[in-house]
Amino acid sequence: MILDKVNSPADLKLLPFEELPELASDIRKTVLNKVSQVGGHVGPNLGVVEMTIALHRVFESPHDKFVWDVSHQSYPHKILTGRKYGFTEGHFHDITPYTSQAESEHDFFTVGHTSTSIANAMGLAKARDLRGEDGNVVAIIGDGSISGGLAMEALNNAGDYEGNLIIIFNDNQMSIAENHGGIYKNLAELRETHGFAENNFFKGFGLDYYYVEEGNRVDILIETLEKFKNIDHPIVLHVKTEKGMGYQPAMEKKESFHWHAAFDLETGENKRTGGEDPYTRATLDFMKEKVAANEPLIAINAAIPALFNLKEFAAAYPERYYDAGIAEQFTITFGGAIAAGGARPIIFHNSTFLQRAYDQVWHDLAVNNEPAVVIVRGDSISASDTTHQGDFAKGWISNIPNLIFLAPTTVAEFKSMLEWATTQREHPVFINLPAHTATEHAVSLSSYDKAHYQVLEKGAKVALLGLGGMLEQTEKISAALKEQGIQPSLLNALFISELDKDTLNQLASSHEVIVTLEDGVLDGGFGQKVAGFLGKYDVKVLTLGAEKEFNEEVPVSELYNRYHLSADIAAKDIVGLLSSKQAV
Amino acid sequence: MILDKVNSPADLKLLPFEELPELASDIRKTVLNKVSQVGGHVGPNLGVVEMTIALHRVFESPHDKFVWDVSHQSYPHKILTGRKYGFTEGHFHDITPYTSQAESEHDFFTVGHTSTSIANAMGLAKARDLRGEDGNVVAIIGDGSISGGLAMEALNNAGDYEGNLIIIFNDNQMSIAENHGGIYKNLAELRETHGFAENNFFKGFGLDYYYVEEGNRVDILIETLEKFKNIDHPIVLHVKTEKGMGYQPAMEKKESFHWHAAFDLETGENKRTGGEDPYTRATLDFMKEKVAANEPLIAINAAIPALFNLKEFAAAYPERYYDAGIAEQFTITFGGAIAAGGARPIIFHNSTFLQRAYDQVWHDLAVNNEPAVVIVRGDSISASDTTHQGDFAKGWISNIPNLIFLAPTTVAEFKSMLEWATTQREHPVFINLPAHTATEHAVSLSSYDKAHYQVLEKGAKVALLGLGGMLEQTEKISAALKEQGIQPSLLNALFISELDKDTLNQLASSHEVIVTLEDGVLDGGFGQKVAGFLGKYDVKVLTLGAEKEFNEEVPVSELYNRYHLSADIAAKDIVGLLSSKQAV
Repeated sequence: MILDKVNSPADLKLLPFEELPELASDIRKTVLNKVSQVGGHVGPNLGVVEMTIALHRVFESPHDKFVWDVSHQSYPHKILTGRKYGFTEGHFHDITPYTSQAESEHDFFTVGHTSTSIANAMGLAKARDLRGEDGNVVAIIGDGSISGGLAMEALNNAGDYEGNLIIIFNDNQMSIAENHGGIYKNLAELRETHGFAENNFFKGFGLDYYYVEEGNRVDILIETLEKFKNIDHPIVLHVKTEKGMGYQPAMEKKESFHWHAAFDLETGENKRTGGEDPYTRATLDFMKEKVAANEPLIAINAAIPALFNLKEFAAAYPERYYDAGIAEQFTITFGGAIAAGGARPIIFHNSTFLQRAYDQVWHDLAVNNEPAVVIVRGDSISASDTTHQGDFAKGWISNIPNLIFLAPTTVAEFKSMLEWATTQREHPVFINLPAHTATEHAVSLSSYDKAHYQVLEKGAKVALLGLGGMLEQTEKISAALKEQGIQPSLLNALFISELDKDTLNQLASSHEVIVTLEDGVLDGGFGQKVAGFLGKYDVKVLTLGAEKEFNEEVPVSELYNRYHLSADIAAKDIVGLLSSKQAV
Repeated sequence: MILDKVNSPADLKLLPFEELPELASDIRKTVLNKVSQVGGHVGPNLGVVEMTIALHRVFESPHDKFVWDVSHQSYPHKILTGRKYGFTEGHFHDITPYTSQAESEHDFFTVGHTSTSIANAMGLAKARDLRGEDGNVVAIIGDGSISGGLAMEALNNAGDYEGNLIIIFNDNQMSIAENHGGIYKNLAELRETHGFAENNFFKGFGLDYYYVEEGNRVDILIETLEKFKNIDHPIVLHVKTEKGMGYQPAMEKKESFHWHAAFDLETGENKRTGGEDPYTRATLDFMKEKVAANEPLIAINAAIPALFNLKEFAAAYPERYYDAGIAEQFTITFGGAIAAGGARPIIFHNSTFLQRAYDQVWHDLAVNNEPAVVIVRGDSISASDTTHQGDFAKGWISNIPNLIFLAPTTVAEFKSMLEWATTQREHPVFINLPAHTATEHAVSLSSYDKAHYQVLEKGAKVALLGLGGMLEQTEKISAALKEQGIQPSLLNALFISELDKDTLNQLASSHEVIVTLEDGVLDGGFGQKVAGFLGKYDVKVLTLGAEKEFNEEVPVSELYNRYHLSADIAAKDIVGLLSSKQAV
C-alpha cells in the first residue's frame, strides 16, 4: 500500500502527486476495515478522504491548524497524523473516535457535539493575532452542523473578523438524517448554479465565498487550497462531496451509514441484529393510537430520528412529524409554543445534546409552564466517550422549577407516565428512558403531579431508594443484603424533580440508614436532594451514583466498582454504616 | 388625550385615521412618564409605537397573535391592550415589565431573554395548523436579537415552513450596545439599497422578504401590514425604525437609553448617581495592568458591556476587547479556543444569560479543560423579574466536572482569585461576583486549585458555613446566635464547585449542627453537596438558601423570611435543631 509509506504529513508531502489517488483508496480501505469490525462513523469519513489529503499536502499542520466540526470525519486525518495503529486489529480502541489533544499535536480540541468548529477556529485565530503569530486556521464543517445556532453565531462573528480564517463547508447534502430548513434550499441552488445563485446564505453574513464542484478530486482540492492559503480575511469554501464516497452501501444508504454498528464489508449488512427497544415500541404505538383518535399530537426531534425509530411514525403520519435539523434550542422553544397553542408536542432528545437547550428548557418551557412532553434517552452511567457522556441530565433538568421529571423503571410505568404527561395541561413533563429495566411490578400511580414513592418491599433498618434505571441494580443490592441477614425496605422513587417528603419522613423515623441509588452523577442529583432534606433527622444517608467526572469509554462494570454501585461493594458499605450506627 | 378613548384594540380600530399620530404621541408620553420615574426600557418602546398601533389596527388580536421578542418593547402593546393602569402613579408595579399570559389574553409568552420570538411564533403557527384553525402569527424581533443562535435556528426552520408566518425585523440599527457581526454589514447594505442589495441575509434562509423604509410612519405601516395580512407563507418584513423615537435624549444616547434607571424627563439625566461597583473597578484595574505588562489578555462579552463598565476598557484597549453581540454560546466556545491558543480570555456574563451556553461550558470549556476565566454577575437571591432570575447558576455550573467555581466575599478575595485564575493553565475558572460583601478579613489563599475553607471564628456545637455573597448574612446569623449564648464556628467556604472534605470531616467530629448558607437555589447547589457528603456522619446538617421556584419581583427581605435566611428565623431554627440533638 502507498499508505505504508505515510506516517506523518511530512511523508505525505514527499509522495509523488500521481500516487495520491491510490493513497486515498488505501485510507478508505483502512477506515472500512475498522468501522466494519467495531462500528463507527462511515459516510462522514469516506467523504472527506481527498479533502484531508489535500489539507495536509497544502498546509503545515500543526502550525496551520485544522478544526474538525464534530470530528466524526477525522479518521483520515488521524491516519495521516501518526495514528494508523488505531486502525489495526487489536488496537482499535487505543485511540478515541473523535479528535483529542491527548493523542496528537495535530488535534486542538476534543469534540463530539456539532456546530463548534467555526467558533473554535475563530478563537485560535484570535489567539494567533493576540500573540503576534502567523499561520492558517481552517474549520471543516458539514453534515448539517451549519444549522446549529452556535455555528451561525460564529458565522456572524466571522463576518466582520479581519484576519486569516478558512471555513470549508463540506456539503455532502446530508444532515445526520436528511437536511431540513431553508438554508438547504439555498445550498441546493448554489450547487445547481455552481456557486452563482442569486441568494447566498454565506454572503448574507458578510463572508467571502468560493464554490468547489468536485470535492472528491484531490487535484482540484489541492489547487483550490493553494489559491486561498494565507488569505488575509475569512472565506467560505463551499465544497461539494459525496458522503460515503467509494463504498457502495454507504453511498446508497447515506443515513444508516452515517454511523453504523459493525457490518459485513461485502454486503453492508449488520453483523448482529438487535431486538427492538420496548420503550421505543411503546412510544410509537402510543403516538399512533393518539393520532388515530384525532389528538393534535406532533413528534419533534433534532436530526436523530433513528435513535427513537421515529422514521416509522414519520412514514405513517408525515404531518405529525417534525425534524428541525441540528437545532436543539429551537425544538424546545418551538415545542413549548405548540403546547401553548393547544396542541400536544412530544420532543425526543438524546441527553448529551439536550444540554444545548438548557436555557430554552428554563425560560421557554419552565417559566412559561408549557405542557410539552420531553423524552430523554441516554441519561445513564455508560461506557460512552467523554463528549457524549449523558449522565448529567437528571441533575440539571430536575433543578429547574415547574417542570416534572419522571423516571420509569418498567415499560408499564413508562406507558402510564406518557399517558398522564400528554393528558395534563399543567406542567412541562420530562420522562427519562431507563437504560435498565427492573423486575416487573404493579404500576403504583396514574397521576404524577405529586411525588409518591412506591414501596416494593417493607423491611427494617435499611431503606434502599432506587431511581429509574438504577432500580434494577438496587434489587441486586437488596439481594446481597438479604444474604447477610438484613431485610431492607426497597422503594421505587419514580420522581427525579421532586421529593416525596411524607415517605422520607416515615423512612427517617423507621430506619437507621437510607440509601439513594441513581443512574447518574451525584452532584446536583437525586441523592443530594434527599440528603439535604434529611440532614435535620437522626438518620444516616448514603448517596450512591456516579462521581462528577468525565470518562473515556470506561466499561460500566468498572464504573460500578469505582462508584460502589456493585452489589457486593454497596452491601458492604451499608453493613458498615449500620454497624457504626449501632455502635453509637 | 386621544389615548383616553382607547382601552382595547377594538377602541383603536374606531379612531379616525388622522388621530393615530396623536395617539402615538400620547403613548410616548405615557411610556416616558413611567420609565422616567421607575426606570425601564426606553428606546425599544419608543421606537415601536407606530408599529404597535399599526399591528392592532390591522390585525385582530388575540385571534391574530403577536409574539414580541424579549418583550422589552411591549409597553405600547400593553397600553393598547387594557393595561394603561400600569402606567399611572401608584400602579407602576401592578404589571410586569415583559409580556405575561397572566396579565392579558393578548400576551402568549412570558419572555425576557432574546431571540425566542420566531421559534415561539412558529410553534403557535404549527399548533394553529394541527388544530385546523386560521389567523396570522406575527413575530416582532430586533435590537440585536437576530444574532442569537436560537433566532437563526428558527429562521432556518421558517425557511421551509408552509403556512402563514410574518416576521417583522425591527431594524433600529442597534443591539443593546452597537451591533456586531457580518449580518449587520448586510443589513446596512439592505437599508442603503432600500432592500435591493445583492446579498440578503434573510433570503439566504429561503425566506420571502420586503423592505419598509419609514417604520415610524403609521400610515405606511398600516398599508404594508394590510398587504401581507393572511399571507400563505413566511415573510420577513424588514422595517427601519429609530430607537428612542420622539425623545431627544434617547435618540442621542441610544445605548444608555436602551434600559435606563429613573431619569429627569427634561434633561435625560440620571435622578440618582450610584457609586462605582468596587468589583468592576478591581477588574478593570487588573486588566489594564495585565495588558500594560503585555499579557495576551482579552475581555469578551455578549452585548452587555455596561453591566461590567467594559466600555472604559474597550476605549483604552480596543484590540483587547470583544463584544460578540447577542451570542452567548459563541463567547464561551470562542473564549475557550483563545485559551487553547495560549492567550488569556476573561469572559463576562450575566448569570441568567449564561444559561444559553450550558453545553458550551460543558463541552467546549470543561471537557477540553480550557483555562478561560468567566466572571458571573447576578447569581443571587434578588427581587428581579422571573425571566431574569439569576440564582440557579451556582448549581448548574458547579455540577460540571473539571471547572473551578469560586465565590469571593470581599474585593480583596476577588482580586486574589482573579490573579490566580488568569495565571494558572489547568482549568476553566468561574468567579461569582457577590451581591453582598462580608466584613473585611484576611485573604486565606493564593492558589485555588484545591478547596480550603477559611475558618473565621472558632466556636462550638454549631458551625456556620457561608458561601460567597451569603457570608455577610451568615455573620448576622452568627451575631444572633451569640445573643442566645451560642458561640458558633464561622467559615468562609470560598469554593462552589468542590468540597473541602478535610475541613468537613473535622467539623463533623467537633460540632453537632453544620449549617450551610448560599445565595442561590438549594436544589443542585452547595448545601446539598455538603449534606450528601456528611450523610454518613453523626452530625445534623441544615441547608439554607432559596427554594426551587420562580419569583416575580418579590422583595429580598420577604424572600429571606420565606427561606429562613433572616437572622432571627435562622437562629431559631438552629437553636431548635441543637435542642433536638441534645435531647437524643
